[in-house]
Amino acid sequence: MKDSERPIGIFDSGLGGLTVFKELRALLPGEDLIYFGDTARVPYGTKSAEAVLAFSKEITSFLLGKKIKFLIVACNTASSLALDEIRKLSPVPVLGVIKPGVEAALKAVPAGGRVLVTGTSATVNSRAYSRALAESGARLKVTEKACPLFVPLVEEGWCSKPAAVLTAREYLAPFRGKIDVLILGCTHYPLLKKVIARVMGPRTRIVDSALAAALGARAELAARGLLNKARGGRSEFIVSDAPARFSELAFKLLKIRTGKVAVKRF
Amino acid sequence: MKDSERPIGIFDSGLGGLTVFKELRALLPGEDLIYFGDTARVPYGTKSAEAVLAFSKEITSFLLGKKIKFLIVACNTASSLALDEIRKLSPVPVLGVIKPGVEAALKAVPAGGRVLVTGTSATVNSRAYSRALAESGARLKVTEKACPLFVPLVEEGWCSKPAAVLTAREYLAPFRGKIDVLILGCTHYPLLKKVIARVMGPRTRIVDSALAAALGARAELAARGLLNKARGGRSEFIVSDAPARFSELAFKLLKIRTGKVAVKRF
Repeated sequence: MKDSERPIGIFDSGLGGLTVFKELRALLPGEDLIYFGDTARVPYGTKSAEAVLAFSKEITSFLLGKKIKFLIVACNTASSLALDEIRKLSPVPVLGVIKPGVEAALKAVPAGGRVLVTGTSATVNSRAYSRALAESGARLKVTEKACPLFVPLVEEGWCSKPAAVLTAREYLAPFRGKIDVLILGCTHYPLLKKVIARVMGPRTRIVDSALAAALGARAELAARGLLNKARGGRSEFIVSDAPARFSELAFKLLKIRTGKVAVKRF
Repeated sequence: MKDSERPIGIFDSGLGGLTVFKELRALLPGEDLIYFGDTARVPYGTKSAEAVLAFSKEITSFLLGKKIKFLIVACNTASSLALDEIRKLSPVPVLGVIKPGVEAALKAVPAGGRVLVTGTSATVNSRAYSRALAESGARLKVTEKACPLFVPLVEEGWCSKPAAVLTAREYLAPFRGKIDVLILGCTHYPLLKKVIARVMGPRTRIVDSALAAALGARAELAARGLLNKARGGRSEFIVSDAPARFSELAFKLLKIRTGKVAVKRF
């Protein structure tokens, strides 16, 4: 088998990474995609760097065993805390979601503009976005805000309920009208995009790290001559727990039909 | 060392079981208590029976290694799904939180009355409360309602925020004025008692499984001659991840000063 014909591996703490999967599936219909969701240990965003690192390494080894050609860490928490260690482990290229999100934000923000990074507690505490934005050399005013209830709200399927609006207001109302670009620094958050946009007001542009990551992956695969131009790529879903619930939520929230979901316990 | 002088083990998926710990500490000031919170894998309530069983067995073996005289499963999800298996593993008596909660509800409910059991998805799907209430022989109308966002709300420390009220309303408003006794079937939920009581209205009595479990433990220890009547019992806290966050939330939510929290990873 040619390298370009091997599958792409994608992983997340749970189902948030499916927002990346969905964009990728649309952009690259010929690729075989293997998605892993760590549903036995979700969420990652309130856990320690040590735990997130250990979990990420286990999953990386598992996906490497599937002969992938490229690995996407479709979880901002794991991208923030474990990307360097995952790269050390991996003989194939690894893409996190921070860099594509930062690049998309840099394109959208005016000089000297104000950026608000939203994410889990672990992502925000890592300051990975602030560092990446600073390294770009752009003069920006960057603030980070953890929104820990957004992931459970999405996992409950309450993306447009009044409780979601009120929660978004509690976290974000102080920033309304004061931000040029808001980064959705968690792959669950695109599912709350409408609610977040409403709270922030029309002046704020929302940057979606899921779409940015999918575009970044396509660019990297193309640059390395690894694109699979076949048709009808297959999708495979594996979780560490509760496959039926995963399948149900994938359809309810993202209209993704997973078919049979396999289970791999660690 | 006499059996009665050995410690009591308590475990939960995270910090919810601290509501049981707190009641127990007040009732039994002479006992040594060892609390384990599985913060690396919290929450349990959205996970499968297999996963909850595997986690519960690991923790039970770990606490048995600490020479405990009595084990309290201070997690409704683990009590619903794993209690029989834990008992098989344990040479010391094991108390779950379902039976004490059911007994307290039976005392509070009028004949033919209406009971609402609230809990995590896993607890509600197990129907453990409905079965235990039916086995009592009392003629009751029992309904169960999963409230999956209550645990993340408590873990965020939002016990009296408007978002907590709106979430409680979303789950419980259809039952307002129609229920005699509401069982808080999750050890996190006592922290939302005021909000839940407000939504349910003054006619509904709220039964707290944390207090019921602590009273049940005292009664069982006394019946077995295992009460430690010394003074100044020690408290030890162990978690599977993020000890500083656990300590901080224990104080913020329950005014428990944990001192140093140890870490045991699985």
